[in-house]
Amino acid sequence: MAKEKKVEQITDMEVDFAQWYTDICRKAELVEYSSVKGFTILRPYGYAIWENMQKIMDGMFKETGHENVAMPVLIPESLLKKEGELVKGFAPEVAWVTHGGNEKLEERLAFRPTSETMFSDFWANTLQTYRELPMLYNQWCSVIRWEKTTRPFLRSREFWWQEGHTIHETAEEAQNETMQQLRCYADFFENVLAIPVVPGRKTDKEKFAGAEATYTVECMMKDRKALQGATSHYFGDKFSRAYGITFTGRDNKLQHPYQTSWGSTTRMIGAVIMTHGDNNGLVLPPKIAPIQIIVLPIAQHKPGVLEGAAALEERLKKAGFRVKTDKSDNSMGWKCAQYEMKGVPLRVECGPRDLENGQCILVRRTDGEKITVKLEDVEAEAAKQLALVQQQMYDKAKKNLEENIYPAYSLEEAKQLQKEHGGFIKTMWCGDEACEIKMKEEAGMSSRCMPLTQEHLGDVCPICGKPAKTMIYWGVAY
Amino acid sequence: MAKEKKVEQITDMEVDFAQWYTDICRKAELVEYSSVKGFTILRPYGYAIWENMQKIMDGMFKETGHENVAMPVLIPESLLKKEGELVKGFAPEVAWVTHGGNEKLEERLAFRPTSETMFSDFWANTLQTYRELPMLYNQWCSVIRWEKTTRPFLRSREFWWQEGHTIHETAEEAQNETMQQLRCYADFFENVLAIPVVPGRKTDKEKFAGAEATYTVECMMKDRKALQGATSHYFGDKFSRAYGITFTGRDNKLQHPYQTSWGSTTRMIGAVIMTHGDNNGLVLPPKIAPIQIIVLPIAQHKPGVLEGAAALEERLKKAGFRVKTDKSDNSMGWKCAQYEMKGVPLRVECGPRDLENGQCILVRRTDGEKITVKLEDVEAEAAKQLALVQQQMYDKAKKNLEENIYPAYSLEEAKQLQKEHGGFIKTMWCGDEACEIKMKEEAGMSSRCMPLTQEHLGDVCPICGKPAKTMIYWGVAY
Repeated sequence: MAKEKKVEQITDMEVDFAQWYTDICRKAELVEYSSVKGFTILRPYGYAIWENMQKIMDGMFKETGHENVAMPVLIPESLLKKEGELVKGFAPEVAWVTHGGNEKLEERLAFRPTSETMFSDFWANTLQTYRELPMLYNQWCSVIRWEKTTRPFLRSREFWWQEGHTIHETAEEAQNETMQQLRCYADFFENVLAIPVVPGRKTDKEKFAGAEATYTVECMMKDRKALQGATSHYFGDKFSRAYGITFTGRDNKLQHPYQTSWGSTTRMIGAVIMTHGDNNGLVLPPKIAPIQIIVLPIAQHKPGVLEGAAALEERLKKAGFRVKTDKSDNSMGWKCAQYEMKGVPLRVECGPRDLENGQCILVRRTDGEKITVKLEDVEAEAAKQLALVQQQMYDKAKKNLEENIYPAYSLEEAKQLQKEHGGFIKTMWCGDEACEIKMKEEAGMSSRCMPLTQEHLGDVCPICGKPAKTMIYWGVAY
Repeated sequence: MAKEKKVEQITDMEVDFAQWYTDICRKAELVEYSSVKGFTILRPYGYAIWENMQKIMDGMFKETGHENVAMPVLIPESLLKKEGELVKGFAPEVAWVTHGGNEKLEERLAFRPTSETMFSDFWANTLQTYRELPMLYNQWCSVIRWEKTTRPFLRSREFWWQEGHTIHETAEEAQNETMQQLRCYADFFENVLAIPVVPGRKTDKEKFAGAEATYTVECMMKDRKALQGATSHYFGDKFSRAYGITFTGRDNKLQHPYQTSWGSTTRMIGAVIMTHGDNNGLVLPPKIAPIQIIVLPIAQHKPGVLEGAAALEERLKKAGFRVKTDKSDNSMGWKCAQYEMKGVPLRVECGPRDLENGQCILVRRTDGEKITVKLEDVEAEAAKQLALVQQQMYDKAKKNLEENIYPAYSLEEAKQLQKEHGGFIKTMWCGDEACEIKMKEEAGMSSRCMPLTQEHLGDVCPICGKPAKTMIYWGVAY
């Protein structure tokens, strides 16, 4: 009965993928719409996922010497405008503060859309010598971009993110930083979120406003659409020239430093939902699941059951798992459906007979497989099963990615493949924006990236017939 | 020589306490002024202190069942205005967003000065039954209040904080929550920040706009001025009536829930500086110090010294301490002064002779005391010394607090005591705001709080002579 109730609540993804996605966001209590148009609320369960992501990623950043800071959230318009390309890219989406208290401000202030300008200004005011370099900074905060249409996690006027900003003595060091952070994101996506990625470079058309080069990790969702996972930018000395950042070099002369920035956002929660979710709801990678194990006592009114469940929870907690017990008077069917909906990776069932026999049953969220385990082995078995679930999720997503990359040798073929299969279409490319625009207009696909791992599919660009410079991935993107 | 350089850099607190404070904020690299008037930058060392505070406090909140969420940063003006007192209190300090991208907004949006309105709106939209209560929420974010004059940490237009917001079935539960969170703050100040506090209730004049009751932990700085450490508010059903929050109660009737909120800010860093700092710089409580132990190799060019220092660092790191080694070619004198300035609680010196003898020297930041310790005992001794430093700091601050509370039995005496000694002046009070205003006008003191631990100093209010209702603390406050 509870199962039926649940099926009523979530739209099947095969019926309406967009509705399925929204249903999960709401019914799993990840987000709520607010009274401010285009702004969402991260509810406790959604925020706990974000916290777990933050904790792991922050540790990775610190491992490689990055430090957290906090920059002002408001940026004077004149400061924002110093670098021409950045402001062109972001100005249409900026929220402007024009009044402080009862006074009209002399200059309006932008709510940060991104903070290259603030970091550059800080360095222009403080940096003195090469001895202080590199400076490897990061901040966790929210930003505003005034989007027209919004969707939970994927596109909202305010979102939460980290933005890394670094400054270096040489171009080479800055380039290495850009690639190191790209690898860091790829590692995080694959090994923490269980989402396989295609790392590559963005075209000039798709790169970050003001960057010399933008690198990305591209993911494929269950509907075979592309999602840009996170990006890492190399700026050269563009910002340091625009903002007048200098330092005294080893040669005792004034020089311009080289910069990078890199960011990832709450959008990653959207990627997790659309990579792993199913028609029963969310499926969370164990490494970021707020509840890794839910303990459900069966026939809990019977003597000893609640005590047995409590002892189990205690043991699992002590072993370091994030575990909860549901002792509410809801039916077992409802509880099973509820925690499936919430994507809890492992369920532990323990009834009077199980406990009498000194055992309990583990159930995997991924495939419903049941494993009977002796109570004294429960910690070891839970660890094993959670690792297995993490692996299963990655493998399944990897299969989806690999099975949905198609080579195309003509624009017509690319168009046809996209229409029939979706996914990523890979072709050679001459490097001209005209061909990129043509692909968008005729096949509805944007360029996703020029993968770091290149293949030779031919010598010419299938769009214009001119000599090809690179292999490139195309797709319909979120 | 390095010592002299350092003394030049920081103003003595006896000469100019305000300048001493600003010097520490800047020279210890906690903050930097930004190009946005009234906004400061938290630099890595300052932010790392805040992160350590956050981690411990967040753990305390979660221990008692609180969950983190994220509410939108912008609040529509109409929503902000629903509760009359709150908006009266905050409207003069609000930063207003009037444009999103190129369009003028139909209704202007306030940058959150505090989020009671957003939480209330959320609950008005989602709360249904008593079964969902209580909801115990918290968020970590920044807020803006458009202050005229600003000082690092103490008063700035943007500051970082946590704001807890909870909603309860009964008034009693909400009152208990208010007091529980007050105790949590007192615990955090005393046992983590090593700052003794006077917990008490604010007068109606000093309470939070919109609160039925505000409780505070009041601290005393080294210049014997008062600083409000953190506050916890009880709202009754004021907000739930203003925002139309209802739930179906146990009696199946619609009821209004009861609410609380409680907050603490980066101002606590200011409190730490002014409670523990000295003329050599910052003194940090070990529990929140970004670097707990600095290892300084002596005569580090001599064979074996750097290896010995590295081995020491490794051992201390493994034991869980936050430890760093300074292997730079700066002089030993400069290094000692530098890490004193930065408030590192414990210094480890190891030279060739020490290492040969299988020992090193620990030096306490608090009193410069040197302890020779065998290398194999270094972890245990470091733990002992850090605990001792934490205790020394608390004891010293406690002494400063206790020795600077004076009873007064007339307005004249209160005035005189404040002039001569500063500190807290305690008197009886009739409860009339007129007397509070008179104390402010004549003695320059605001009411700090009506302490939870009351004393009987007499039967009448020394200001008006009418019957006294309570004992109250007065002081000159930051």
